[in-house]
Formats: sequence, structure tokens, C-alpha cells
Amino acid sequence: MGSDSDLSIMQDAADILQDLGVAYELTVVSAHRTPLRMIEYAQKAKARGLKVIIAGAGGAAHLPGMVASITSLPVIGVPVKSSNSIDGWDSVLSILQMPNGVPVATVALNAAKNAGILAAQIIGTANETVGNKVAAYKEDLEKEVLVKVSNLKAKGHPNTFD
Amino acid sequence: MGSDSDLSIMQDAADILQDLGVAYELTVVSAHRTPLRMIEYAQKAKARGLKVIIAGAGGAAHLPGMVASITSLPVIGVPVKSSNSIDGWDSVLSILQMPNGVPVATVALNAAKNAGILAAQIIGTANETVGNKVAAYKEDLEKEVLVKVSNLKAKGHPNTFD
Amino acid sequence: MGSDSDLSIMQDAADILQDLGVAYELTVVSAHRTPLRMIEYAQKAKARGLKVIIAGAGGAAHLPGMVASITSLPVIGVPVKSSNSIDGWDSVLSILQMPNGVPVATVALNAAKNAGILAAQIIGTANETVGNKVAAYKEDLEKEVLVKVSNLKAKGHPNTFD
Amino acid sequence: MGSDSDLSIMQDAADILQDLGVAYELTVVSAHRTPLRMIEYAQKAKARGLKVIIAGAGGAAHLPGMVASITSLPVIGVPVKSSNSIDGWDSVLSILQMPNGVPVATVALNAAKNAGILAAQIIGTANETVGNKVAAYKEDLEKEVLVKVSNLKAKGHPNTFD
Amino acid sequence: MGSDSDLSIMQDAADILQDLGVAYELTVVSAHRTPLRMIEYAQKAKARGLKVIIAGAGGAAHLPGMVASITSLPVIGVPVKSSNSIDGWDSVLSILQMPNGVPVATVALNAAKNAGILAAQIIGTANETVGNKVAAYKEDLEKEVLVKVSNLKAKGHPNTFD
Amino acid sequence: MGSDSDLSIMQDAADILQDLGVAYELTVVSAHRTPLRMIEYAQKAKARGLKVIIAGAGGAAHLPGMVASITSLPVIGVPVKSSNSIDGWDSVLSILQMPNGVPVATVALNAAKNAGILAAQIIGTANETVGNKVAAYKEDLEKEVLVKVSNLKAKGHPNTFD
Amino acid sequence: MGSDSDLSIMQDAADILQDLGVAYELTVVSAHRTPLRMIEYAQKAKARGLKVIIAGAGGAAHLPGMVASITSLPVIGVPVKSSNSIDGWDSVLSILQMPNGVPVATVALNAAKNAGILAAQIIGTANETVGNKVAAYKEDLEKEVLVKVSNLKAKGHPNTFD
Amino acid sequence: MGSDSDLSIMQDAADILQDLGVAYELTVVSAHRTPLRMIEYAQKAKARGLKVIIAGAGGAAHLPGMVASITSLPVIGVPVKSSNSIDGWDSVLSILQMPNGVPVATVALNAAKNAGILAAQIIGTANETVGNKVAAYKEDLEKEVLVKVSNLKAKGHPNTFD
Repeated sequence: MGSDSDLSIMQDAADILQDLGVAYELTVVSAHRTPLRMIEYAQKAKARGLKVIIAGAGGAAHLPGMVASITSLPVIGVPVKSSNSIDGWDSVLSILQMPNGVPVATVALNAAKNAGILAAQIIGTANETVGNKVAAYKEDLEKEVLVKVSNLKAKGHPNTFD
Repeated sequence: MGSDSDLSIMQDAADILQDLGVAYELTVVSAHRTPLRMIEYAQKAKARGLKVIIAGAGGAAHLPGMVASITSLPVIGVPVKSSNSIDGWDSVLSILQMPNGVPVATVALNAAKNAGILAAQIIGTANETVGNKVAAYKEDLEKEVLVKVSNLKAKGHPNTFD
Repeated sequence: MGSDSDLSIMQDAADILQDLGVAYELTVVSAHRTPLRMIEYAQKAKARGLKVIIAGAGGAAHLPGMVASITSLPVIGVPVKSSNSIDGWDSVLSILQMPNGVPVATVALNAAKNAGILAAQIIGTANETVGNKVAAYKEDLEKEVLVKVSNLKAKGHPNTFD
Repeated sequence: MGSDSDLSIMQDAADILQDLGVAYELTVVSAHRTPLRMIEYAQKAKARGLKVIIAGAGGAAHLPGMVASITSLPVIGVPVKSSNSIDGWDSVLSILQMPNGVPVATVALNAAKNAGILAAQIIGTANETVGNKVAAYKEDLEKEVLVKVSNLKAKGHPNTFD
Repeated sequence: MGSDSDLSIMQDAADILQDLGVAYELTVVSAHRTPLRMIEYAQKAKARGLKVIIAGAGGAAHLPGMVASITSLPVIGVPVKSSNSIDGWDSVLSILQMPNGVPVATVALNAAKNAGILAAQIIGTANETVGNKVAAYKEDLEKEVLVKVSNLKAKGHPNTFD
Repeated sequence: MGSDSDLSIMQDAADILQDLGVAYELTVVSAHRTPLRMIEYAQKAKARGLKVIIAGAGGAAHLPGMVASITSLPVIGVPVKSSNSIDGWDSVLSILQMPNGVPVATVALNAAKNAGILAAQIIGTANETVGNKVAAYKEDLEKEVLVKVSNLKAKGHPNTFD
Repeated sequence: MGSDSDLSIMQDAADILQDLGVAYELTVVSAHRTPLRMIEYAQKAKARGLKVIIAGAGGAAHLPGMVASITSLPVIGVPVKSSNSIDGWDSVLSILQMPNGVPVATVALNAAKNAGILAAQIIGTANETVGNKVAAYKEDLEKEVLVKVSNLKAKGHPNTFD
Repeated sequence: MGSDSDLSIMQDAADILQDLGVAYELTVVSAHRTPLRMIEYAQKAKARGLKVIIAGAGGAAHLPGMVASITSLPVIGVPVKSSNSIDGWDSVLSILQMPNGVPVATVALNAAKNAGILAAQIIGTANETVGNKVAAYKEDLEKEVLVKVSNLKAKGHPNTFD
């Protein structure tokens, strides 16, 4: 992440990776305050054995795109709605609108959890254990909704479908 | 893709996948006109051996998100700027802003080429041949720029750096 | 509705339908978490005797459009301003900008009450009792304003019109 | 429609209503240039036997909402992207964002065809013939896509799904 | 104003008109809830001796434009940022983007005070007393700034200009 | 106007003023290129007998607001969509969003004709001849629509209202 | 700055200039309330020995552009998100979108601190002491990030890079 | 500039620098395709004697901000409206919304000419010859407007001010 002020958002990525059985590391790499550290981080990522990089940043958010310009690993970008952001549009567009040749896999505003799931899906394309955990996770999502359906009915809301 | 009117955009994904040595298929699956076909496509994708799905659509673009709701494979979304689009904002936001649990890896407006590269990067996390082709592709991008630098200098633009 | 977190908004639709004498049911059907349930719901709706479907959802809101892709009943969409929404633009555009062939009758952001009234107007095109209740409701709206006019005048605000 | 300059857009609504077997009338009623005509049109609509009103307008588009303020019939609004429009945002927001009590069933920018289909769906809730035509129309949409799928395959695009 | 919920904003117009010696009246006229009252109000305005009409409304704000469609008096529109507004854009565009032939003199979001000043400026084009009060008001604005300049300097902020 | 490149737009204001019998002058006063000329123009406007000032400008359009800061006459602002404008948003917001104390009567994007009509309405509050011409102009608008209604009917479009 | 209500934002510029050893003055100059004071301030700035002017303002923010129209010194503009601003877009576009010939060096919304750093960078192009302080400041930024990296690791977040 | 496709825009900066007597160099440095070249360019800029860097780029435009993260020289950013840009918003926000500590002096969309003038103003703070040329340039801007004023009058447009 670009700043430790993004931790409250980015922690969600770490938590879901933990749940899905994917090893991860979490640190601060600032495109604007530590550009050389960022370069080194991206250059060494593949050799260090990383498979996917999740980069979250706010405002004029250059971290995801710059990391993607250096490494050939897939990079997932999380637009963070920071304090002086213009409603989040700045981070969304700074991360999403990359030029031809250098994609960033962008997820929704503040959606670090989805970045973690996407990373697990990528790992899961070759790692069957992780792939199965993602599939099981999706089934749990469905079950949670069905519990809510029952709860609503129990509270007396009319419903003839279920 | 959601409509054959998106073909002129989405062909770029097919072309770059060809270049990077990744087998692909290309067809029309419309979330709104053939919802059951879409469901079946997404349900069978993993068992048929697909590793990544690229879904491109315009306007209220539901195809990428709906496919992602069914399969546990990674889904890449390409917002297409269709004819009655409101400047592309509709397709960008319809694809990007997915709820927690169901990510779509969104690329830039009309950036089907980047979707193809991202798919190759994902395949390349486990397939060394593809991974190396992506790395080589990135080096070519750099060389192309250096040729342009020389051309500019040759045309007489002052430049003391190179 | 797409999530029980939308209940505080969507309850307004239930309440006004109750007031206007229109029977309704209320449940959770998530396009992204329970896609097959959504398909089944939309497929059976007409045969179960539903006349109109109101679907409310936030963010990349695919529920209204997907339901409309399956059923031939009129579908009313309520864009909900959810927590990580980009000012509501995402849900508005995801619901409104449907392609040719698959309309969604979209109402204002968070306007579940208006969705209920619109449903009653649709029922009322063939059901005289409901049609008259809607007409009476509109007259009440007018009377409420006239009371406010009197109150303002009573508080001393100058007004020579009434 | 609010102006005869909207005819090229609004003709689509007339054409699809014709196809779906719904009788219609088409005229110009300007909220801003003929306000009294608009009032009279809306006041007499129900007694004249109209079931649904489709109102299309551009810019600060007040016609749909004003008609809805007078009649208790359902009103469908078509935002038209007129020449000095700010990218269509003005007509979309002027039609969509109606206050509580006075809904307008808004369709996508320039989507007069969808307005016609939605009107037929509304008529079809009580008129089985029209309801069946709408259902058949949706099946045709699906078949058209399947033809395109075959065409793409015939042109040599790889596709192992169909 | 279109609703008494706009009173906290629109009171500013009344107060400044009072200060500038311009007689006014203040009432609720809703385009959407009392359309016939609105028509009558606008039709009689000139004959009742009104010179300028200030109309404030939020959301899909049709009041200013509809009043302007009926009367030939100048109409000033105040976009009000109401509760379910999309950041005020809806009221701004609904009031501002009037078609050729029917202008509305639009002021800034929530700027009822400026609407009052503008009304006084209009009255002041023919009424010297009011015109002079407006001119004096502008001089007071200047003096207030100069006091602030002194205050800042007194608090120790460096300033070599004054 | 701020630049002679705005002439094709601003000529509409001159033409309608001519039609409505209001004397006018037309010149270029640039806030950014001739700031002192702008100051002098605004300072002398009232004494020279001007009643209303129409100021049109594009991009970061400061002319209307700056003129309004100096004169106590009413100032009408016309946002012009210039070549490098960001869809006209820049000129609209630069003219509309004036602070308390200094209103600009803003009309729609490129709506110089409406600026002319508004100026005539302001003159017409005290000048009966001009006031009557504006009223007659509005009646003509209505008649033009009725001609279009007849034309549409003559072309065979069904219409049982007229 | 255009108003003393901007002081809480603009103080950041003063503070960082102090830290970087650049003498400054701070006062209120309102484009709209004290236009002649603004003209005089800009006209005398160069002769008084100023090197750079930082101008912060909100809403329809004309101060930076107007000052830049008069002086030939570089002008830095700070868009301030004021109370009735439309999400800050008005001040950003009013300051940024200056016509050819009259640039304003615009910084991010509310980014007065960056305006101060930019002013110091400009001074530093010819003043080695200031230039070195800016360079040292940037090194401090980097060190602060490295401390945060250590802190994160100390708290147990996994990280194999450092 | 980030790409040679930006040359048609960025040439304006070179031309005006030539006119104002400021030596310059012009080359392509891509943040995303040649990140290491960009780093080296920014690291060596000050030692090579550069005083100001102008960086133009489109889409997710990271070049200006990344250069500014490395050098302590002032960096001017030119947002370029590239082909798949979302109306230019992406490049504007990617360049403007830099975090605290790392300013970019942003000019208007496509305003390379203004970037050149701003660079000359910065050089001119210490170089009297350049400073005087900028001042003379501004006087020429004024004279050009006055010629246009005369031309308009000569064509018969009424104007009693000049």
C-alpha cells in the first residue's frame, strides 16, 4: 500500500487471503515518497516468488500502474478514497485508465477484500487447494443470503416464493 | 463479449493472446438477451478447462459481473464505450463497482488489448513459457519507445539526455 | 432487493403499496451472491401471478436488469446509494442504461416510495380500485402543500397570492 | 415528445409499439413552449382512454415529470441527448430525480425503443395478447444472438462452447 | 419555493430583499404536487404587480423553468441541494439547461441570498433607491474584507502590502 | 464576450435583442488578456446608461463574475463550450458558482439567445414596450409548436388529442 | 487568499514556507469583493519584490486566474473545497482551465502545503539554499515511510522484502 | 512527454519557449514503458542543469507525478486528452491530485503552450531577460484583443465604449 493511512482499508485483503489459505506479505511502498524502493520492490517481486501484487493507493494513485510497468506479474489495484480525494474519482481513474501494454486489474473503490479474493482466484487457476477454497467461499456467500431470506420471512415480511 | 458490435474492440484481446501463445475462444454471450446461455457458459467454464474469462460489454454492462457471480475463475471486465453510452461512465461503473465477494478485474475503457495481456499474466503465474513471453513483450514496449526517442532526435528536436 | 442492508430504503416501497391496496411480497434475491435463485425467481414470477417486480440494489447494481432479461413483466429499478458507492452514480447508471430490448423502469436514487407508487400506477391501468387510490393519493399530496402554505402565512411570511 | 427535433429518436417507440400490437398516438407537447396544452393533455389523458404516456425530452427536460404531476397514469420518460446538452446528464437527471410522490419510469439515454417495450409490458400485465407478444419478442432477441454466435464461428473465431 | 423543506435555504433571499428595501412575498408552490396552483401563480404574477420571481427547488427541479414557461417576467432559479440529490447536480442541471426561448436566471447551489441580490439588481435598473442600496451593499462587502485584512495582520501574519 | 472566437455563439444574443427592440452594444472584453479594460468597462457601465450586461466566456470563464464584482448592474453569464473545454463543465461552474454577495444570472451552455431574452425581460420590468414584445415572443413560441403538431398529423402520425 | 474562511487550509502553505526558509506574506485579497485591491496587489507584486504568488479560493474561484492575468510572476492556484461547493469541482475547474497565454500552476484540492513546496521549488531554481532545503525535505519524506515500514513489521504484519 | 503521439500537443510548449528565449530539450520518457529511463532522467535532471521539467501525458498519466517524486526541481504537468480518455478527466485527475509533499504544477487540458509560459515565468523569477520577455508577451496578448475590438467595430457591431 502507498501509505499506512490506507491500512484500515487494505487489512481486508490480508484477512481474506488468510481465510483462503494464501500466504501474503504486507508493507508500505510509496510511489511518490519512496520511488526507488518501489522500483526495487517491483523488480525483485517475481524472483522472490511472489505470484500477484495487490497495490492500494488514493488520490493521484500511481503505485499500482508504476509497479505494473516494471514487473510482468499481474497487479491488482485498489482505489482508496483518501481524505482530500474528489469523491474517489481521482484514485479510480488514476488506477484504471492505464495505457495499452500495461494493465492493472482494478477493483471497486475501497474494495480491498475483493482484491484479496481476485488474487486467490489467480493463484487458484493453478493451485487446486486455493481454487477449491474460493469455490467454497462463493457457496458460503449464497448460504448467508438464504439465511437472510429466512430471517426476513420470520419477521413477518410477506413472501410466497420461498 | 455481450454483442457482436463489440467485436472491433474485443478482437484486440484475441490478437494479443495469439501473440503471447495463449489459446482462447471468442463468442457472444449476452447477459440481457441470452441470460440462460450466460449462466450455462459460466457454470461450465472451469470444467471445460478455461483458466480466465474476459468479458467485454457496454452501457449497463452486467456480463462481467454476472459471469463472476457464477464461476470461481478470475473474470476480467472490459468496459466498452457503446453508441448511446454516457461517455463510457455507465460501462466503467457497471463493471468496476462490484460488491464484496464478487470481484471483476476491470481494465480501462475499450482496453481489450490490456485484458488479453492481463489474462496472459495470470496464466503466466504458473506457466513459465507464457510468463516469459509477457516479460519479453514488456521489453519490446521499452525498445519501441527508444526508437521513437531516436526518431525525435533525428528530426532535430533538441535533446541532451540521450 | 439485492441485500438486506437495502431494507431501510426498500421498506418505503412496501409501505406505500400497503397504503394503496396492492398486495406484495418482500425478499432478498442477490444477482451476485445467489444468481440461480435470481434466475428461478424471475422465471417463475409471471406464472406465480406477479404483475410487476420492484428490484432495488446498489453499486454495480445488476439485479433489476438481470431480472428484466428473464421475465417479460415490467421491472422497476431502485438505485440504492450503498456505503462504498461513488455518490450513487454507479447504481444509477448500472440500472438505467439498459440496452435496446430490455428496459428497466428506473426511479430516482433511493426512491423506493416512488417505485411503489409506479407499481400501483401500473396495476391501476387495469384495476380501477387501485387506479382510484393512486388518484386520491395525488390529491392528498396537493392538500398537504396547501396546509403548508397556510402555516407559512400564519407564521407571518408575507404572501398576497392566497 | 417535447419538440419535433426529437422525432428521429422517438419514432423508435412508435415502431416497436406497432410491432407489439399496441395502439398509440404521437404528437408534440412542449412543457416550456405550450404549458397549457401540456396541462390539458395530461388532465384528459385518462378519460380519453390512454393507459400509459411516453414523454421524451432533452436538456432541462420537464415534460415527463410535469405530465406525471397531473395524471395518475404511469409516465415513461425518455432522456434525449439534444444538441446543447451537457453529454446527456441534464436530461437524464431532470427526468430521473423526481421527488417522492411523483415517479417517472425513466429509461436509458435516447432509448425510445425501450420506452415502447416498457409501455407494452405495462399494457401486457392485463392484456394477454400484448403480454404474449412481449414474451415472443424477448425470445426473438435470444435467437438473434444465437445466429450471431454461429456467424462468428463460421468466420473462424475459435469457440469450443457451442 | 417548491417545498417548505427549502425554507431554511430560501429564507436568505427574503432577508436580503428586506435589507435592500424590496417588498416580497414568500410561499410554497410545488410544480409536482400542485401543478395547477403553479400555473395560476405564474399566470397572475405580472397582473398582481410582481416584477421578478425567485423559484427555489431541489432534485429534478422543474419549478423555475415551468414558471418561466408561463410568465414573461424574469425568473431566478435557486438550485437547492435536497436530501436524496446526487450532489446537487440534478437541481443545477434541471434549472440551468433550459431550451431556447425560456431562460431561467440561475444562481449557485443553495445561493438564495444571491437570488435576492440579483432580484434587487433587476428592480434597481429602474428604481434608483433600490439601485443605490445594491451599490452600497457592494461597498460594504469590500469594507468587511478590509477589516479581515487588518485582523489577520493584528494576529501577526506577515503582510507588507497594506 | 471574452474572445472573438465566441462571436458565432454570442451573435444570437444580439439578434434576439434586435428583434425585441432593445438597443445593445457588442465588443470584446477579456478578463485574462485585458483585465484593466474589463475593470474600466464595468466601472463605467452604469454611468454610460447600460441597464444589463451579458458576458459570455469559455473554459475558466471569469469575465461574468469579475464584471459582476465591479458593477452593481445585473450581469447575465453565458457559458461557452470552447475547444479545450472539459465538456463545458468548466465554463458552467466558473460562471454559476459565485460566492454570496456577487450573483451572476447564468443561462444554459451556449444559450446566448436566452441571455438576450432574459436581458429583455429585465428591461421589460420597467419598459412596457419591451415587456409586451417579450410576451408576444412567448406567444409566437407556442404558435410554432402548434404548427409542428399539425405537420406531424398531416404526415400521418396518429393523434386523437388535437 | 480570497476569504479568511480559507485560512485553516492556507495556513499549511505558510507553515511549510517557514520550514523551507522562504519569506512570505499572508493576506486576504478577494477577486469578487475587493476587485480593485486585487488589481493593485497584482500590479505591484513584482516591484515589491515578490517572486511567486500563491492564491487559494473556492467555488467559482477567480482569484488565481485574475492575478495571473495582471502580473507576469508565476501564480500557484489552490482550489479550496468551500461549503456550498459542488464537491470541489467548481474551484478545481475555475482555477485549472485557464486560456492560452495565462497559466495558473494548479495543485490538488485543498493542497496548500503543496503550493508552498512548489513555491519553494521555484525559488530554489535560483537560490541554492532553498533548493537544498527542498531536496532535504524530500529525503525526510522517504525516511518517514521507512519508519512506517518498520512499525508495520514490528506489529507482526508479514513482510519478507525488508 | 509520455508518448510521441503527444507531440502535436506538446510542440506548443517548445514553440513558446523558443519565442521567450528559453533553451529546452524535447524527448519521450514513458513512465509505463520505460520506467528506468524515467527514473534516470529525473535523477540526473538537476545535475544536468535543467531548471524546470514539463511533463505531458494522457489517460492514467503518471509521468508528471513520478518525475516530481524523484527530482526536487519544479515539475509542470500537462494533461493530454488521449484517444481512449474518459473526456480528459483521467489525465487531469491523475496529474493534479498529488499527495502532500510532491506537488505537480498542473495546467489546463492540452495546454502545453501555458506550460511553456509557466516555465518561462519560473525561469524569469531570477533571469531578468526572460522575465521581461514574459511581461512583453502579456502586453502583446492585450494588443491582440484591442485589434479584435477594432475589427468588430469596423464590421458594424454597435459599441459605444471604445
